[in-house]
Formats: sequence, structure tokens, C-alpha cells
Amino acid sequence: MLENLTDNRIKKMTLPQLSELCEEARQKIISTVYKNGGHLSSNLGMVELTVALHYVFDFPEDKIIFDVGHQCYTHKLLSGRYGKFDTLRKRNGLSGFPKREESVYDCYNTGHAGTSVSAALGLAKARDVKNENYKVIAIIGDGSFNNGLVYEAFNSLRLLNTRILLILNDNGMSIAPTVGSMHNYLEFLSKSSEQKEKREKHANIFNRFGFAYDGVYDGNNLSEMIEKLREAKLKLETQSVILHVATKKGKGYSFCEENPEATHGISISSSKQISDEYSQVFGDTLSELAEKDERIIAVTAAMTTSLGLGKFFEKFPDRSVDVGICEEHATILCSAMATQGLKPYYAVYSTFLQRSFDEILIDICSQKLPVTLCIDRAGISGSDGETHQGVFDLSFLSFVPNLTIAVPKDIEEFKDMLRFSVGFDGPLAIRYPREGKHIFERHEKIERGKWEILKAPEDKAVIIACGERMINLALAAERLLSESGTEVGVINARFVKPLDTELLDKLECGLIVTLEDNALLGGFGSLVDTYFCESKRLIKNFAYSDEFIPQGSVDELMRDYGINLKDICDYIKNACG
Amino acid sequence: MLENLTDNRIKKMTLPQLSELCEEARQKIISTVYKNGGHLSSNLGMVELTVALHYVFDFPEDKIIFDVGHQCYTHKLLSGRYGKFDTLRKRNGLSGFPKREESVYDCYNTGHAGTSVSAALGLAKARDVKNENYKVIAIIGDGSFNNGLVYEAFNSLRLLNTRILLILNDNGMSIAPTVGSMHNYLEFLSKSSEQKEKREKHANIFNRFGFAYDGVYDGNNLSEMIEKLREAKLKLETQSVILHVATKKGKGYSFCEENPEATHGISISSSKQISDEYSQVFGDTLSELAEKDERIIAVTAAMTTSLGLGKFFEKFPDRSVDVGICEEHATILCSAMATQGLKPYYAVYSTFLQRSFDEILIDICSQKLPVTLCIDRAGISGSDGETHQGVFDLSFLSFVPNLTIAVPKDIEEFKDMLRFSVGFDGPLAIRYPREGKHIFERHEKIERGKWEILKAPEDKAVIIACGERMINLALAAERLLSESGTEVGVINARFVKPLDTELLDKLECGLIVTLEDNALLGGFGSLVDTYFCESKRLIKNFAYSDEFIPQGSVDELMRDYGINLKDICDYIKNACG
Repeated sequence: MLENLTDNRIKKMTLPQLSELCEEARQKIISTVYKNGGHLSSNLGMVELTVALHYVFDFPEDKIIFDVGHQCYTHKLLSGRYGKFDTLRKRNGLSGFPKREESVYDCYNTGHAGTSVSAALGLAKARDVKNENYKVIAIIGDGSFNNGLVYEAFNSLRLLNTRILLILNDNGMSIAPTVGSMHNYLEFLSKSSEQKEKREKHANIFNRFGFAYDGVYDGNNLSEMIEKLREAKLKLETQSVILHVATKKGKGYSFCEENPEATHGISISSSKQISDEYSQVFGDTLSELAEKDERIIAVTAAMTTSLGLGKFFEKFPDRSVDVGICEEHATILCSAMATQGLKPYYAVYSTFLQRSFDEILIDICSQKLPVTLCIDRAGISGSDGETHQGVFDLSFLSFVPNLTIAVPKDIEEFKDMLRFSVGFDGPLAIRYPREGKHIFERHEKIERGKWEILKAPEDKAVIIACGERMINLALAAERLLSESGTEVGVINARFVKPLDTELLDKLECGLIVTLEDNALLGGFGSLVDTYFCESKRLIKNFAYSDEFIPQGSVDELMRDYGINLKDICDYIKNACG
Repeated sequence: MLENLTDNRIKKMTLPQLSELCEEARQKIISTVYKNGGHLSSNLGMVELTVALHYVFDFPEDKIIFDVGHQCYTHKLLSGRYGKFDTLRKRNGLSGFPKREESVYDCYNTGHAGTSVSAALGLAKARDVKNENYKVIAIIGDGSFNNGLVYEAFNSLRLLNTRILLILNDNGMSIAPTVGSMHNYLEFLSKSSEQKEKREKHANIFNRFGFAYDGVYDGNNLSEMIEKLREAKLKLETQSVILHVATKKGKGYSFCEENPEATHGISISSSKQISDEYSQVFGDTLSELAEKDERIIAVTAAMTTSLGLGKFFEKFPDRSVDVGICEEHATILCSAMATQGLKPYYAVYSTFLQRSFDEILIDICSQKLPVTLCIDRAGISGSDGETHQGVFDLSFLSFVPNLTIAVPKDIEEFKDMLRFSVGFDGPLAIRYPREGKHIFERHEKIERGKWEILKAPEDKAVIIACGERMINLALAAERLLSESGTEVGVINARFVKPLDTELLDKLECGLIVTLEDNALLGGFGSLVDTYFCESKRLIKNFAYSDEFIPQGSVDELMRDYGINLKDICDYIKNACG
């Protein structure tokens, strides 16, 4: 039924047909995600609700925004993308997130948490200004609902004098179980045994902001959803509505229902048995260090397990903080704790650290506080695409005064850096990708701003690389070039900031090549360019080109967006030939 | 009495003596701000409350955090800084904001809105981990209370299992009058004629998050404040407390009471009759353009007048949006409106745009949406110091894909850029300082990425400058060098991104000098360095050094932090000699 489905057709279906459609969508999602990787349990929870939305509303005329956007698979299947669904998350395939470029049914691209209510208000305001009449719907999970952006948007609902329907999709999870008082409040609304009328009185938090509140309903009950969405649609003629629905993460697939956190995201690598080594090593090493040092505190924004902190949180509950999806708050919390002599470690994915830019600059670094940012999923992160690549952190951190930035060459050096961080009295960032290995036998002692010579610089050329992926590439290039008679040196730039200027000053080679798993502009290579700008040196930077990098495998994207072995070797051979 | 005041002494004072102390503080604040510039009306409103705080609590053992921090003058006067108060906001003088470097009474540096609750929770959590026993107090205005960070912090209060006292200083203003539903709610709590008990029932929004609520009290009534703070201190033994107080902005000085927005900040330049020309011209020009183009929408985060938008808001109320101090939400709102064919202009100070970094990257630029960022107070902003200098915007914007960055050479070119922006179909940032002039007769037509030759490049050297201050400096250097026989060219880099590579490629001079009113790293000069890294060119970048720039006049700071006429001329003479 999903094949060749049109909006027109879905509206004429009977309830049993719609149920069948749900089952078909669910099976398609399971089979595709197991092949391609992707968000599984959240999408399984959303099937009935999404079918009901397409049944009741008129898309694409009406607009729907998915917060974060990882739960939009059924929406894609219902809006003419069934045929391409096998390409989900693959290079040049369907995105795992809403994409305006992909379909008129996707009206706003998302990827980071909490933006949907603001975006819905923007669409609604634009509608009003243009005297149009479509409906605007935002759908947000209880996890994203913790984010401060939601409050900012709520606060301006009346001000903008407009109307939206906000569907609060409450599954009690935000990758990890949702935490915080707002979550408790939602749970209270869900579980209260009081009469609906009385319960709704307690919902006056939402009323205060101008929303009519209706809930809690079973988001996995198709007929109930159709009924409640119809009611909400009517109410929406005169005022904004929050429809609070409870869905079951992983619904309809018992393995997911029982393991909602582990099946939030399925990566293809899971099947290849590649574990997330850096995050694992991070958690284990920090636990070891915390045994001996009572100042150590671990902070995360709703990603405990993905960051490897599961054990730490079990072992040191009093020194573990998960604040929910509140990256800015997490950063300030660390900064304030550091003023009192504690040693906070804020672990976060590179892409989500972008939210904390102002707080890193003002709160941590202008106060020179010893907070350690542990930046996971740095560099290309792969199949999640544009909004999730970790290719900007060096660019937005390298110009921040007082910040030291370290990048390990392998798992063992990463451990050394973590040990180093304990005694380091200033703002420190350590960035690392997902996958990692033990590569090197030899590890020089970590000293701030001191690089490591892996192969002595030659007269002709030296490659300065930072991070495991780039060091591997540099060594591969060195071997290949050596085979064809061109000898080059290789340096491990363990610190992006400060640069090892003592070593740079000693370099006498004709060509300096920089390699980094980051955007070219503002990154490591740029720092070297600027350092040498008065020296008339020949420098070649290999880094990602100035564009957003879409989904694909790490290898594909490195190759296509500016960093690959052949280009590096060709350049060096040409320059040194 | 203020001279040689100690905590010990204030605690032994009688109420009349404390009142006298208030009067003295008030006079000192007025006389100092009229000499040095600074925040006037907010500080006048805070006198009694601050004296009461020092009377009831034990600083510095107890910790107090001022949100934004502009209202801390009385606190400074009461904590041993009366003697230095004449140096307020001057180079090497007392800061207008809390500074840990300045006094043990300042426990956390602030400057941007909404951080105080998070920071207070961090201090409290650290206290608990260390088994200490001090009190933690945050004081926040109703303006900052709109910021999403507050919600993020509220949400984790119970989670952190700790206790703080939050004083909500409600004066109905956030530079401009406070807006939004939270403001309405606070007003409702303030003005309700119901019995206190009944009113407090309505305060269950705060209760839900774990705060006991007490209010509303007269924050300018000294004895009432002492009594209520004592009660709050007791209650704080067992739970977190919100004390809601109403203060009068400008209290005790009728001119301020009647003009709270105009006297929020007093700048020394006011006395010199230098108007804020760029912001004025921005508002006027945008109004003219909006007459002819109905797509134009102006958005601000609580700074309507300071950004020059007063008239626009009067003239086009339906196309004017002030969302309160919610920079991130404002950015997404613009982005969403742009998807529907509107033309949003988000006007904001450079330093506050830092909060929107992730939304600029993901929402605006990865979707290539035609939002125009109008970045006021770019470059050194002067006496507000570290947290307010606009010297990072080029660094955090220049690597953002799809973004065009324009910098006008004078007021007239700024108007041209605004006119250009209307027809420009992509993300655009225009950055400008506070003060501006009409300098040039001739203005070449604005074309994206096209620079302007002001004086033809010479063989020896060319200065490429961006922005009015730097163009002035470049022309001054050119004249001075010419007088001593060294001829140099001058180029107006009207676009920082994209670079005018066609022009750059044609340059044959031996030395390229870049001038910018931004940090060196990641800024305009760095882009030029990276562009030429394979060309062995001699490039010299003049820009701000890699450190936080403290308070002082624009001239002083330019001189001391890396950009001045003498150094520029000396360098060029040496290099070309």
C-alpha cells in the first residue's frame, strides 16, 4: 500500500486499511534501518501518530516540523519517498532527517534539539503576514522539551499573536531516559489518576504561555489519534494547542521496546562489531582518574551511554550530572563548579557543542577556568549528514583565547591526554572521532603545546597531521611516497592550540603539508598559515572544503570533500619533483 | 560612611544608618556614571536590595551572582571598592561588571544574560560535593528571565538536589520594556489584588521546578527587604527559594525614573554629542526599504532602540518582532520566516550574536536562507570590557559555509549594502561599529565579493582594510608613508567573505597588509593568509591579539592590543625599505 501512496488516497482509507499501512511502514522501517543504520525505536513509536497526521491534515499545504527530525521516517514513507527509502542515510540517498531539498513535504530542516517551536512560530508568523491560511504543526519529544529554546519560543507565542499546534510526543526518553522537573511534570500529567478536568487544571503552566492543553492520549492508538487530531485542528482555528501524547519507543518490535536506549540509533558499524572505542576509553579512563581524584565531575547533556559514561555514572553518582538536552546550561554548570576547585569534564558530541559557543568563550575561557571539554564524534561523523558532522569545532574553538586544544593520535595517547588534563589548570578541549585504535608503541610524554616527531622532517617536505585519522593518512602517504623515492617527515600535532612554534621555527623543509579532520577555514591549517604569513613558506592545507558535508561514509566523504591519499601524494610529488 | 566600610560594620548599623548608606551609594553612582558612563537606572533601582543583602548575608563566604552583572555597582561600593570607584569602566580601572580578578566578593563573572541560575547551581553543587555550607544567591532581572538558559537551569534544580536563593528583580524592563508571557505572568503575580495566599497558589509554575515562591515585595523598601531576606535565608536551609521583588529602575533620580530605557546605559560619548550613527542609519534605511518591500521584517532581542529600530517598530508594527533576550529563538524565527519568502533582518550586537552561533550555522546557513544579520557594535565596543567586545564575529562567521559577510567603509556604503541586501537571495551578515561618518564621495556599486580600490596598489605594498575604522587607519597610514616617500595602495575589502580573489590574484606587490577590527585568529587576515598559503607571499596581519580585551576607549585598546598607526607605518617602511 505504501508504494504509490498519495495524500488523496490516504484520506480515503478505512481504519483497517490505515492500520495495515502502519504495519507496512513499521516493517519497512525495521528492515531498512537494519540494513542502512538509523534511528529505530523513536521511529517505530511514531508510526500511528504520523499516519493520523497525514490522514487529518493537508500536507504539504499545512506545514509540519519535526524537532531534531530523527523521527520522520514514516512521514517520508507517506510523502512519496517509499521508492527511494532503500537509499536512506546513504551517500546521495534519502536523508535520515527532514530536508527541504528533498521534498516539499519537508518544510524546515532540523537536526539539533529544541528548534521546532521557534520554527513553527516563524512559519505561522509568515503565514499571518502574508494573509495565508495553512496550519502549522510542530512535533517535539519530551527530551527536546528540556531545551531552553522551547521556553524562549513559548514566551513569545502571545507576543507574535499567532497559532500553532504543538504535539508533545512523550516517550520518557531523550536517547537516555529524560530527566528534570519538566519531565516529572509531564509524567505527573500522564499518570495522574485524577479526572481529566482536574488534571487539566494542573496544566496551567502551558495555559500561562497561551496554549490550550489537551492530553494525555495514546499516540500508538490510531483511531484515538485521528479523533484527537481532528479536535485539535478545530481548536486551532482560534488558539494554539498542545496535544500531549504518550508513545512507546520501539513500539511493535519487542527487542526495541525492551532496549529503547540501545536501539535509539542503529549504526551499520554495529553489525561489523566495531565498538565505539574512544567513548569507551574515555569513560573507563575518567573512572580510573576519579578514583584517585575527588575533584573530578562528569557532566553530560542526555548522552551518558553514547559518550561512554555509563560506568562512571554508576560508580560516582554524586559526581555525575546529566542535565538533559541543555548544552548551554551544562557548560555554565561546569564553569561554576570549576571556580570552586572542582575539575569538571563536559563530554559532548562535536556538533552539539556548537550550542555552547558563547558559554565556552565567556564563562569558561574568559575566566580561565579548568574545565575539560571532551569532544566526541569530531570530524566526519557519517550518515547523519550536514547537521551532525563534527567538522567545525577546531574552527570555532581555535580563536578562543586561553583555550588549549589537544587531539590524540591514537587511543593510548588519548589516555595520556586525559591523565595530563587532571593536573592542567586551564580550559582544555580534547577532540576525538568515534572509532579508535591502539596504533603506536611509543608515546612521548604530553606537554602542553609540544608536538611529536614521528618521522624526522626531510628537506623536501613534512606532513603535520592532527588526530588519529589524519595521522594514519600521513603515515600511509609517507610510505607510498617513500616507495616512489620521495622522503617526507611526519609530525603529530598533538596540540592544535597552542602551536608548537619552537618546532615550526626549526622546520627547514620546502613544503609544509597540514592534515586535519575539520573545515579548512579557521582550522589547524589556517593557524599554521597565519603563523607563517610573514615567512614566505610554501604550505598546503588538506581539510574539508567550505561547504556543508552531506551524509555518507567517512571514507567517501573524506575522498569527496578534500582529503584523500592520492591528492596528498600527488601534491607532494609535484611540489618536490 | 561608604569609605572604609567593612562587612562587620554594615552588620552593626541601625536602619537609619543603612538608609543613609543607601543615599550615599546612590549619589556616588549618579556622579560616577555621569563622569565615566555606565549603567545608571538599573543600578539606582538595586541600592536598597543590595544593602539589605550585605546586611543579611555573609559575603564573601556566601556567594552572590549578578545576572548580566551590570547592576552590581552598589555591591562594589559595599565590598571595599569605594576608593577605586572613580576608575569605573576606565582603562585598568574597576569593571562595570563582576570580576573575580577584582575582588573575592565577585565569585562569578557575568556579562551575557541568563547565566546566573546555572552558575548558582554549579556553585551550590560544588559546595555539596565538598561538604561545605555557604549560601548561594543569584539575582536576575525580569528581562534576563526570558532567556532559555533560565528554563534549562530550573529544569535541573531537583536533579542536582541542591539549594539556591533566586532573587527575581522585577522592574519591567530589559533595556526596552520586558515582553512575553513570562513577563505577563510576573506582572499578574505582582498586580493581583488577591490575597497573598491565593496568589501564591498561582505561583505553582515555580513550585513545579522545586522552588518555594515568596513575593512580591518592594525591593526599594530597605526594612521590608531585610525582613524578607532573613526569612528567605531561613527557608533556604531546607529548600530553594524564589524571592520576587519589584524595584523601580532609576529609583531616587526622577530623570531616570521617567526615562528608564534612555538611562539604562549612559555612555561618555552622550556628553560629547556623538550619536549612534550606524544604528540610526540602519533603522532609517530599513524603514525606507520596508515601505517599498512588504517582505521585510525586523527582529530584535530586547534592543529595539539601541539598534535604531524605534521608528521601524512604530511604523510597521506587524512586521516588527521583539522576542526579549532570546537570541537563539530570534535567529530561528528569522530562518523559518525566510523559508516562506519573507525577508527578515535580525539586528543584534556582535557580542550577543555569539549565542546564535549554532542557529546561524544550522538553521540559516545550511538551509541557505536569505536572512540578513545586522551586526552592531562590531569591533572594540569599549568600556563594558571583555564580555562585550565585538571582536570575534568575523572569526565565528568566516568559516560558516554559504554565508556572505559585508563590512561597510562608511555610512553611505552601509546604506548601499542594505539596499543590496534586499535583492540578495542568501544568508548575509553586515557588521558595523557604533559610531560612523560619511567619509567618501565616491561609492562603487555593491557586488557580492567585489572589493574597491581606493588607491591603486603599488609594487611595494598594499593595505587591504575592512570597516570604517580600519579604512580610516589605512588612509592615514598611506598619507603618512607617502610623506616619507613610500607609496602604498589601499583597498576597501567590502566583503570579508567571499574574498575578492580576482583582485587578490592580480596583486603584484611585495607586501600585503591586512587591517581588521577583529581577533587575528580566524578573522579576515587569516582568510587572506590561507588563500595565499601556496604562493609564498609576504603578508602582515594587523588585528587583535589572542587574548580577551578588557575595558578602555576604542583608541586605547586598538593601540594596546595590536592595531595602531605607528606600528603599521613602521612595519611597511621596514619591509619596503
